[in-house]
Amino acid sequence: MATASLLIDGAWQDAQAVLDTFRSFNPQTGEANSTAFPVIGWSDLDRMIAAGETAAGELASIEPERIARFLERYADLIEERREAIVEAAQRETALGAALRLGEIELPRTTGQLRQAAAAVRDTSATGWSTPTIDTEANIRSRYESLGGVVLVIGPNNFPLAFNAISGSDFASAIAAGNPVIAKGHPAHPETTQLLADAARVAVEEVGLPSGTVQLFHHAPPEDIARLIGHPGLAAVAFTGGQSAGLAIKKTTDAAGKPGYFEMSSLNPVVLMPSAAAEDLDGFAALWAQSIQMGSGQFCTKPGLCFVIGQELADTLGEAIATRFDASDDSVLLTEGLVDSIDRGVRELQDAGAILLAGGANSEEPGFRYPSTLLMCNGRTFREMPGSMQRELFGPAGMIVACDSEEDLGAALRVLEGQLTACIWATESDHGGELYEEIRRTLRPICGRLLENKMPTGVAVVPSMVHGGPYPASSHPGFTSVGMPGSIRRFAALRCYDGVPESRLPATLV
Amino acid sequence: MATASLLIDGAWQDAQAVLDTFRSFNPQTGEANSTAFPVIGWSDLDRMIAAGETAAGELASIEPERIARFLERYADLIEERREAIVEAAQRETALGAALRLGEIELPRTTGQLRQAAAAVRDTSATGWSTPTIDTEANIRSRYESLGGVVLVIGPNNFPLAFNAISGSDFASAIAAGNPVIAKGHPAHPETTQLLADAARVAVEEVGLPSGTVQLFHHAPPEDIARLIGHPGLAAVAFTGGQSAGLAIKKTTDAAGKPGYFEMSSLNPVVLMPSAAAEDLDGFAALWAQSIQMGSGQFCTKPGLCFVIGQELADTLGEAIATRFDASDDSVLLTEGLVDSIDRGVRELQDAGAILLAGGANSEEPGFRYPSTLLMCNGRTFREMPGSMQRELFGPAGMIVACDSEEDLGAALRVLEGQLTACIWATESDHGGELYEEIRRTLRPICGRLLENKMPTGVAVVPSMVHGGPYPASSHPGFTSVGMPGSIRRFAALRCYDGVPESRLPATLV
Repeated sequence: MATASLLIDGAWQDAQAVLDTFRSFNPQTGEANSTAFPVIGWSDLDRMIAAGETAAGELASIEPERIARFLERYADLIEERREAIVEAAQRETALGAALRLGEIELPRTTGQLRQAAAAVRDTSATGWSTPTIDTEANIRSRYESLGGVVLVIGPNNFPLAFNAISGSDFASAIAAGNPVIAKGHPAHPETTQLLADAARVAVEEVGLPSGTVQLFHHAPPEDIARLIGHPGLAAVAFTGGQSAGLAIKKTTDAAGKPGYFEMSSLNPVVLMPSAAAEDLDGFAALWAQSIQMGSGQFCTKPGLCFVIGQELADTLGEAIATRFDASDDSVLLTEGLVDSIDRGVRELQDAGAILLAGGANSEEPGFRYPSTLLMCNGRTFREMPGSMQRELFGPAGMIVACDSEEDLGAALRVLEGQLTACIWATESDHGGELYEEIRRTLRPICGRLLENKMPTGVAVVPSMVHGGPYPASSHPGFTSVGMPGSIRRFAALRCYDGVPESRLPATLV
Repeated sequence: MATASLLIDGAWQDAQAVLDTFRSFNPQTGEANSTAFPVIGWSDLDRMIAAGETAAGELASIEPERIARFLERYADLIEERREAIVEAAQRETALGAALRLGEIELPRTTGQLRQAAAAVRDTSATGWSTPTIDTEANIRSRYESLGGVVLVIGPNNFPLAFNAISGSDFASAIAAGNPVIAKGHPAHPETTQLLADAARVAVEEVGLPSGTVQLFHHAPPEDIARLIGHPGLAAVAFTGGQSAGLAIKKTTDAAGKPGYFEMSSLNPVVLMPSAAAEDLDGFAALWAQSIQMGSGQFCTKPGLCFVIGQELADTLGEAIATRFDASDDSVLLTEGLVDSIDRGVRELQDAGAILLAGGANSEEPGFRYPSTLLMCNGRTFREMPGSMQRELFGPAGMIVACDSEEDLGAALRVLEGQLTACIWATESDHGGELYEEIRRTLRPICGRLLENKMPTGVAVVPSMVHGGPYPASSHPGFTSVGMPGSIRRFAALRCYDGVPESRLPATLV
């Protein structure tokens, strides 16, 4: 097979302008997979946005039930094709096939699609469209689809549950009635292709407009910028690294379009002295496990642990280092990630952090890196807040050893915006001055505040917030996980003033 | 009086760095009012943001009832001081004292403050904070204050109801628990000063943090940019013209902070042939009145009317021109607005529009401009969409004479994002192809769709949407008028995961 096709306007089509080709790799072996995929140019994106615009117009008057049925049928088809999907995902990501991909991520993906379907059917005042009816003034409003295409740019780390064509951003954008152009991540194109084909069949079976779901994998930044500036493109959703995210955010902002960027987060944990005294080893086991989960490739990996006292820091460091030294090297998603984490570890060392475990490139084949632990002191952390807040995407964490409660408070105050923050405490801390001050500092800088719970599990429930202040995400008022909130990101607030009842949408009568 | 003081940290203070001074003018006479106000530099803004940061921290744990009481007491004080406030506003804006300012805008302002107070007290699932409680997973979320200061930049055209220190953005930001730094409009500083003093007294009486409400009137763009980039500044709200708005939006976007910009809108009206046939003169009377209301200085002024057929366009043009020619020149808010509308009329003429009434600078004293009517054809409009969509802020409108239904459809499709759009139709149109196509075109490009109703009245009700797609506003999912929606703009979505019940906010238990 030369270059695989693109999903354009309901059919697999060959790229017209192949600028280059790329292949995914098997991270276990470092060998390239067989299928070559195209890096496409503007003419293909132009075909996609044209088909998407047509779909947006048609979707504006389609009965929502059809959208709900699409989401459900798509979930069914993913389950029917689960063996092939999980096999491809395992081959392209090295994430565990049986447990992680098969038993956790795939059901989470189909569950999200079905939750989106349920949200489409919920036309109550607390549903995503929030119908607000003032019969006296004859003024009514609700959230509606944006009237254009949503570009969803997917990350590398969740090939199913955050995939641009099957994840929460996708399900949310579709639930609001928008067509999606998905940009799959180049690290797992075969997986994305299989998902896209299930979506294509579901679109056809249910009878949605043919341009409702489209897919490409790779295009130059300038063509993606041109797509974002196109009048038919209504919004952008991005999950990934900060430098790519900020570049695309700038383009989106300049075009005056809503953009939702989930970028990076260090997810600080503060270990209170009381909790350390009560069960340091229990904490160490949970923290180490949470760092290593999914090879540390979680947006919510707890990358920093703040403690008071060098002795405690050393004891914790030893407990973690022992675990890390006894672990196999982790397989990362791409060679680039291995380079990036290794460079990050060196930069942190140059800035004053000490290496306690790992940190050397793996000798084994494939894309591997050892579980790595660093330590710095509170003063270094707060005096070089930029250098010390470098995200290490992979199995690595850093202990910040503070001298005193004051030092801890000052270190926490330089933290940037985070997806999550956690206090590990005992009941005796509650109401105490230290605990309260830490709460006051952490609460406004994160989307999700946890107590005695590692942040790596993100439940897909309405009360979840997967978002946070900049630079963790681009807007503190939204979540990318949890219906119906995640859906409203892709909606416009629209009012009908003086419109006769017979001309109103059904949910506003 | 030399230079009036700034409201900083609960007290009227002198500016430390007076870069320049300015005075407001009486638009009726063109003469400067007596008080000189300071153009301030960074050191004063620095004092304000420091006091604001302290207030933000204190407000995070204050009982909401106190915020509600502040909003109500402030409304009471505005009413107690209404005579002085209306007198100053009339002198600085030339808007009608008795009716417009006294009977409409002031009660609207106090009503908005009281609605905000009621919204503060509403802790239900449909209230602004939207508490979402999942007891099984022990995950809860709600909207909370941002944790920093909101900068509110007010417009020139509503000295009370949209004033940076008393309007909807102010009331909304305060209701969400944020301190506000208000930048009053330099066209009506004396009015703003009187309002600010009422706010100051209410803050003191109710016992809110002293930095909750602060005020300045004028500072260089680079210092305002520095304020927006300051870590203590959490969000920006702006109502005003497009070029100033876009410059401040760029700074806000780059800082990664939420910004809500309401800029400009042409508010197109489509006059259906049937409605023209039924009562052209009735329509002409309403359109002319809506254009002239408040000297045409409304964000929702219906600036464009699309008709089919040159004969109808000519008849409508004559009806409007007759009314405009018989009207006194309108008094505009500033000399700059007179220059701007006059330049805009010339530019539209240069681009192919024909002048049917007004268009000449007034000979009378003060800042005046005659009611002005232009006409262009559909082809000119759609071939030069940029030039022809120039906002004329003042008593001016343009008829777009289309050749055919196709020409009308094509002209409407080049329209930029609008706050409002209106169809003037009869029942016989409903369900017809032309009506449906117009609806399909107008619905996604505006926040508020009207039928047989001019858009200049903006009811302050929960179902109102005062917002719309870019460039009318910076995000299509929000409204600046109508609680509780307007409040959520200034809130962060925050989750509590695994937090013991005793440590949860009261509304999440």
